[in-house]
Amino acid sequence: MTILEAQGLAARNAARKLAVTREGLKNKALLAIADALLARREEWLSANAADLEEAKRNGMRPALLDRLALDEKRISGIAEGVRQVHSLPDPVGQVVKTILRPNGLKLEQRRVPLGVIGIIYEARPNVTVDAAALCLKSGNACILRGGKEAFHSNKAVITILRDALESVGLPRDCAALVEDTSRETASEMMDLTEYLDVLIPRGGAGLIRSVARNAHVPVIRTGEGVCHIYVHAQADLPMAARILYNAKCSRPSVCNAAECVLVDRAVAKDFLPMVWELLQKKNVTLHGDPECRDILGDVVIPATGEDWDTEYGDYQLAVKVVSGLGEAMDFIAAHGTGHSEAIVTENYTAQRQFCDGVDAAAVYVNASTRFTDGFEFGLGAEIGISTQKLHARGPMGLEELTSTKYVIYGSGQIRE
Amino acid sequence: MTILEAQGLAARNAARKLAVTREGLKNKALLAIADALLARREEWLSANAADLEEAKRNGMRPALLDRLALDEKRISGIAEGVRQVHSLPDPVGQVVKTILRPNGLKLEQRRVPLGVIGIIYEARPNVTVDAAALCLKSGNACILRGGKEAFHSNKAVITILRDALESVGLPRDCAALVEDTSRETASEMMDLTEYLDVLIPRGGAGLIRSVARNAHVPVIRTGEGVCHIYVHAQADLPMAARILYNAKCSRPSVCNAAECVLVDRAVAKDFLPMVWELLQKKNVTLHGDPECRDILGDVVIPATGEDWDTEYGDYQLAVKVVSGLGEAMDFIAAHGTGHSEAIVTENYTAQRQFCDGVDAAAVYVNASTRFTDGFEFGLGAEIGISTQKLHARGPMGLEELTSTKYVIYGSGQIRE
Repeated sequence: MTILEAQGLAARNAARKLAVTREGLKNKALLAIADALLARREEWLSANAADLEEAKRNGMRPALLDRLALDEKRISGIAEGVRQVHSLPDPVGQVVKTILRPNGLKLEQRRVPLGVIGIIYEARPNVTVDAAALCLKSGNACILRGGKEAFHSNKAVITILRDALESVGLPRDCAALVEDTSRETASEMMDLTEYLDVLIPRGGAGLIRSVARNAHVPVIRTGEGVCHIYVHAQADLPMAARILYNAKCSRPSVCNAAECVLVDRAVAKDFLPMVWELLQKKNVTLHGDPECRDILGDVVIPATGEDWDTEYGDYQLAVKVVSGLGEAMDFIAAHGTGHSEAIVTENYTAQRQFCDGVDAAAVYVNASTRFTDGFEFGLGAEIGISTQKLHARGPMGLEELTSTKYVIYGSGQIRE
Repeated sequence: MTILEAQGLAARNAARKLAVTREGLKNKALLAIADALLARREEWLSANAADLEEAKRNGMRPALLDRLALDEKRISGIAEGVRQVHSLPDPVGQVVKTILRPNGLKLEQRRVPLGVIGIIYEARPNVTVDAAALCLKSGNACILRGGKEAFHSNKAVITILRDALESVGLPRDCAALVEDTSRETASEMMDLTEYLDVLIPRGGAGLIRSVARNAHVPVIRTGEGVCHIYVHAQADLPMAARILYNAKCSRPSVCNAAECVLVDRAVAKDFLPMVWELLQKKNVTLHGDPECRDILGDVVIPATGEDWDTEYGDYQLAVKVVSGLGEAMDFIAAHGTGHSEAIVTENYTAQRQFCDGVDAAAVYVNASTRFTDGFEFGLGAEIGISTQKLHARGPMGLEELTSTKYVIYGSGQIRE
């Protein structure tokens, strides 16, 4: 039995206990975790300092260093996040449906934990706590495999978490860290069908695709987004410009940021110069089709076929002029990733056709795609944004970390 | 582009149309299909005769020949099944949840079709119609790959189905048959991630395991069942005997049949002889542990470790005496397949602990496991019984063939 299999078995046993643990005790554990994160923050900070030092030595880029770094304020924020999870309603045991059958059988479809959740993520130490808290509240054990760059930070905080679990009488193995951060353990997790009920990769597109491609454990794909803003001929153009500017520029690195704008030919001449004025403030690079270049000139780089399928994650935007709703929807069907798509229009029928016909986790009318997020949707938390259609689609909160079971109450019924 | 890829692309296009097709038209198509099955039954019957002749030449077993065979009565039953699907409510467009956010955004979580569903199944020609009807009603295109033994039957009926679709103005490609029934096309389907949203294998355990193991398309596992009946010390013993007899003998080949009985030591001496009297009527072979053999004698074959994990699918039953609820639940956790598990007891706390603690799609109190079925659960139809935890668990009706999307209605909101 490998180390990971032993962790899997221990997690499986912990999950059986956790599945029948009442909300009260899970909440007590969450408060204990939040308290311990503050009380033992020096341990976490000094481990993080070791990671940062190593990362600097290895020449990590400043943006990534920033994601890796912890400080007092961030730790307070993370602890506060755990308290928020504590105050969310426990989905486990919720009755989704009740069916009374003519033969007297009473069926109850209840939410139950998924079991053991594996999470593979990159170098953000806060994910370790966020993910463990969400899994705990939803009654799931978790096996966490963070990036090697955050190894010391993760090892320090998992000890704090497990001590807190134990302090309230829950098994330490409700949360475990994979300490060997080599590629081999990632592969082994993808094959750990006996012990993992689901695997959630969190990170860059490369990581997610590789896990989805290679895992035998069921995977939930998250966070790949080539999102479009479609400016319809009957759009309120200043509103469209504000929405596009927000969707592109408020945080370009995230998956719900817009990567491409489609503009109806009828309004392209008015709209493009208007939005260009805003986009210039952030030095956005435009990759446009010939019509866009006719309107805005040489500031626009000619778009190649590749641009239409690129998640820039940066201050870059693809621009295409279209003939109308039909072409826009065909284009989105061909190039979208099913994450978030928006139409800006004052036309009732156009928005209705767009909402019905566009196949994506989130379809917007007259709002920025940046709202696709568990907190913004009012779920109170988020483990990721599913871009697949099975099980969960869009922002995943606690409910999406559950399965269901039918409990059937009889009085001796047999089937004819 | 291979034939299958071309079918995939055509199905993808058909699915886009079907996703926005109203219930009225889908219902019209279902009625047209039911009518056409009757009007053109001679075509289907003569194709089926060709399959049967070939199967007999190849020495197919009588039980399998019977599953392959069609007659007027069966065709009427299949057409009637399509009419029943017609009368079920359309899940597409149902609003699952509405959320109003403080910033004025209105979120609507709606049911949408999954898209294109692939189904790999064995030699039962009725599956072709059942599956196509369920997919159609839930707005999904389907690509069906039946067993080679039913090739002529399937080819005849898919033509009838596609003609009926066309007659009401829907794309023929809403339903397609994979005509090449070699292993290669099964493998190709498992890799058709670009065109298939989900793959559902229906058939024996070998088929299901192989698809679940090898597919890159998301799979829903169905129909693997090692189900237990646990007879608690405080059971109504005659009721327990009736339930076990029903669960084992009413149709032993199906996945919700019981394969193993666990009996509390305190009642084993009373219960085992009582149920043995019933089971003898069907010549059930018992595979028992030493205590069971002490009670019933040499009629019981000594159970090996393998018996505890075997889905007999036949008049065979594993028998184990246990010390009580805890041992029974541990045993089910170790050997159950998460399908259907039952406790027979009059004790309130025991049933509650069993229902909470046993991890299965269906957990029964005082009823036969044979009820795990879409019709018996009142879902009106069934595409299979999911034994996995993601997406759907237990009998899958029309709702389980849908995903959801969020539609967000704004008035210019941007994210701070």
